[in-house]
Amino acid sequence: MASRRGMAQAEIGSRRANSVYETIRSGIKERKWLPGGKLPSVREMGERMEVHRLTVLKAYRQLAEEGIIEAKYKSGYYVKSHSMASSESLHAGDWDYKARSLYVNRSRLSDIHRQQVDYQMSEALIDPNLLPNAYLSNYVKQVFDLYPRVLSTYSTVLGDPELREELACFFLAKHGISVHPDELLITTGSQQAIDLVSRALAKPGDKALIERPTYSPAIDAFHQQGITLLPVEIAPEGYDLDEVERFMKTERPRLFYMNPTYQNPTGYTVPAAQRKRLVELAEKYQCLLVEDDVYHDIYFGSPPPPPLFYYDTEGYVLYIRSFSKYVAPGLRISVLAARPALMEAIAPVKALSDNGTPLLNQKIFQHYFFSTRLQEHVVKLRTALELRKTAMESQLADTGWHWASPEGGLNLWLRLPRDIPVDELLRRALSRSIAFVPGSICDPLGGMNDRMRLSYSYLNEGKLAEGVHRLIAIADEIRVEHRFL
Amino acid sequence: MASRRGMAQAEIGSRRANSVYETIRSGIKERKWLPGGKLPSVREMGERMEVHRLTVLKAYRQLAEEGIIEAKYKSGYYVKSHSMASSESLHAGDWDYKARSLYVNRSRLSDIHRQQVDYQMSEALIDPNLLPNAYLSNYVKQVFDLYPRVLSTYSTVLGDPELREELACFFLAKHGISVHPDELLITTGSQQAIDLVSRALAKPGDKALIERPTYSPAIDAFHQQGITLLPVEIAPEGYDLDEVERFMKTERPRLFYMNPTYQNPTGYTVPAAQRKRLVELAEKYQCLLVEDDVYHDIYFGSPPPPPLFYYDTEGYVLYIRSFSKYVAPGLRISVLAARPALMEAIAPVKALSDNGTPLLNQKIFQHYFFSTRLQEHVVKLRTALELRKTAMESQLADTGWHWASPEGGLNLWLRLPRDIPVDELLRRALSRSIAFVPGSICDPLGGMNDRMRLSYSYLNEGKLAEGVHRLIAIADEIRVEHRFL
Repeated sequence: MASRRGMAQAEIGSRRANSVYETIRSGIKERKWLPGGKLPSVREMGERMEVHRLTVLKAYRQLAEEGIIEAKYKSGYYVKSHSMASSESLHAGDWDYKARSLYVNRSRLSDIHRQQVDYQMSEALIDPNLLPNAYLSNYVKQVFDLYPRVLSTYSTVLGDPELREELACFFLAKHGISVHPDELLITTGSQQAIDLVSRALAKPGDKALIERPTYSPAIDAFHQQGITLLPVEIAPEGYDLDEVERFMKTERPRLFYMNPTYQNPTGYTVPAAQRKRLVELAEKYQCLLVEDDVYHDIYFGSPPPPPLFYYDTEGYVLYIRSFSKYVAPGLRISVLAARPALMEAIAPVKALSDNGTPLLNQKIFQHYFFSTRLQEHVVKLRTALELRKTAMESQLADTGWHWASPEGGLNLWLRLPRDIPVDELLRRALSRSIAFVPGSICDPLGGMNDRMRLSYSYLNEGKLAEGVHRLIAIADEIRVEHRFL
Repeated sequence: MASRRGMAQAEIGSRRANSVYETIRSGIKERKWLPGGKLPSVREMGERMEVHRLTVLKAYRQLAEEGIIEAKYKSGYYVKSHSMASSESLHAGDWDYKARSLYVNRSRLSDIHRQQVDYQMSEALIDPNLLPNAYLSNYVKQVFDLYPRVLSTYSTVLGDPELREELACFFLAKHGISVHPDELLITTGSQQAIDLVSRALAKPGDKALIERPTYSPAIDAFHQQGITLLPVEIAPEGYDLDEVERFMKTERPRLFYMNPTYQNPTGYTVPAAQRKRLVELAEKYQCLLVEDDVYHDIYFGSPPPPPLFYYDTEGYVLYIRSFSKYVAPGLRISVLAARPALMEAIAPVKALSDNGTPLLNQKIFQHYFFSTRLQEHVVKLRTALELRKTAMESQLADTGWHWASPEGGLNLWLRLPRDIPVDELLRRALSRSIAFVPGSICDPLGGMNDRMRLSYSYLNEGKLAEGVHRLIAIADEIRVEHRFL
């Protein structure tokens, strides 16, 4: 992975920077460069010491931070006449009134994701080895020949008209859903679609229904907008529709954010009959349904029921569909479908956010997604992911941990016995290079302390089996210790 | 341009769709397909009529909209048993309480931009003919060989570490500004940076200073956040610093959004002495300076003074720098520099917005921007743009219209004689395929009705001369008519 390689390079770079740093520091101490005197330029010093200029820059930067040298405009670095610690008068505390409190889930989650671990079962990402990288790269090069000016051209706010036409065609052919290209908005990933919807269609003080558990960044997005969340339990059979109706009737929520197909994190799928009824309830109580559909094409047996969007005739469903996750996640292409009355409110917020998703990404996606090769890829990908799921499940078979085997998606949602506290398990797992997502992060109420999400999409079968094996060993360790307490 | 070509294709497509539409409609009328009966699939009908499936889809969609046929899930299109108009129960009025009022400037501006005109002097875009498209396309292909998994990899929230390292190096080498890579955030265009700053660092009810006139989407971004704007006049010599200090002292604004170098729309540049003093005032009154620097490298004589960010030692300046505008606007790469205390508040909002700018765009930008070829390109570009500016100015020489000749940037800011109402001029100009931006859109107070912005960056010299010539003719026409009223 490019970022991993970058990381390794950065480490080597740091070591080199340290030695450059030491050399210059001693040079100054030994009055090789005098106070007030100019140091060689970054480039010159790099050549002299036979290191990259970035390495020199790092050393200079560190020396500047320590007040030993200073940068002067358009001139370069100088040895300071007298060392003086800079007093930074802005402190985080002054500015965080908004940011700190609102991103609790996100920051816990990114703390986990940030760790470089050998057994990565926390991020629901598809193993790059399962993606047709080489083929795609070659394919992509054609896009520049097809659209020689793709790099000079802005997209429109809604997104490239050709791509939206093709997607409209796809929705019809694949799902029998008739949608006009102007009812489609291309977003930079599903995250942006959720953010736009929360900004455009709800105001502070509004209420929203949300699944319990759910995709945790969605909790953050709605909280950031000042929206009160009302949790609706999701079970392998779907929701308790009486509860949903009671909520809609008494609380008059503005919207229901849902992920009804191979739900994240549970893997549960809301059955077709409930979908139809939910759309009726939405109309009756004028509650928008925000349907986030990221795993639709990642099924193991038969395809899932049609999206709720299919049953919608009155425009109450907003449909967020992500494709690029399993095609080319680096492109970050998702699509949001909404009827004109809603799109009219969302499009200006998209304009404000970034003026439209970059055209290049849309064109690459378009040309790859609608190629015949893609269907072959998805078929293979399903098989590969099912094998991984099976590998994880057979390793877990004798643990006494509970889960409902998902028929699609990238995750297992597990309930652990009471004598294995998930937080303790996570703490120890991370220290041994194993990562997963604790249930509490996915719960809008912050509970579900006996649950965890394990993603089987990133590691190959061998590593998955080994990672889960080690995780079980840690759990056994905790159980034994607790028995002796 | 890809989008223009797309547009032309769409028109041809519409004509074809009309004939397909007519054929099917008559077929139904003539009971070739019976009520309740299934129509041929989109693909089949396309083959039969020798048209693209999108063309058929359009015709089917139109017939469905008219209630003549209907789509059924996973089955296809059917002739309706009885025609029935659909009653859409969601109306724009229900949802626009937020969107409508907040995007007044934006919607007026996009109404103008949306028009396809021959003499495009409204958008401050660089003519794609001035960008090294072919070279860049070939260059870009190498990125896929260098980073074979760039399409499978997500960026970190702040942006690619290598790119941020290179940019830190650039800021030091070019401006003598020492900035740590973690004080840099890569954004999808400058628009996103402004949006993030307004969301992360201000809350509804806060006050902010803004230049009068200014970049109009910034007005929208701050309004959307519920911020009260206090206008600071900008003149060819800069601001009235006594006025700025009075505002800071009495109104305690949270921030000052500014565009001090070849300002949009005026082209004015705030002199170095004022920059230094502004930073002192910002510290004294604890008012953040949000410095939007989009045209820094587009100068015609000597380079502009250093950014305000250069004078900042206490962390009060947020610096937004855009490069991709004149390199590859389609990439949408900008960088926001902010000291740690502020970055800590901004990064979570970026995570919420889109989880990080796509890696692909960052890698392409990095490899091109730091190539030697780029500097050669920028030098040529400056000359070309200066020639265009001169062409526009000589055409305007005898009009009696006033402007201060800008030393950089893409725009002329003109004051027209009282007997030529700018709104009337715009109305007539648009009807004759000439577009420009009326001053009122750029004024946070909605005045400046005798001003206009003419961009000289998009048309070549010949077209510019012709466009301005025609515009003057329209103005003369108006003047003559008014004389006879």
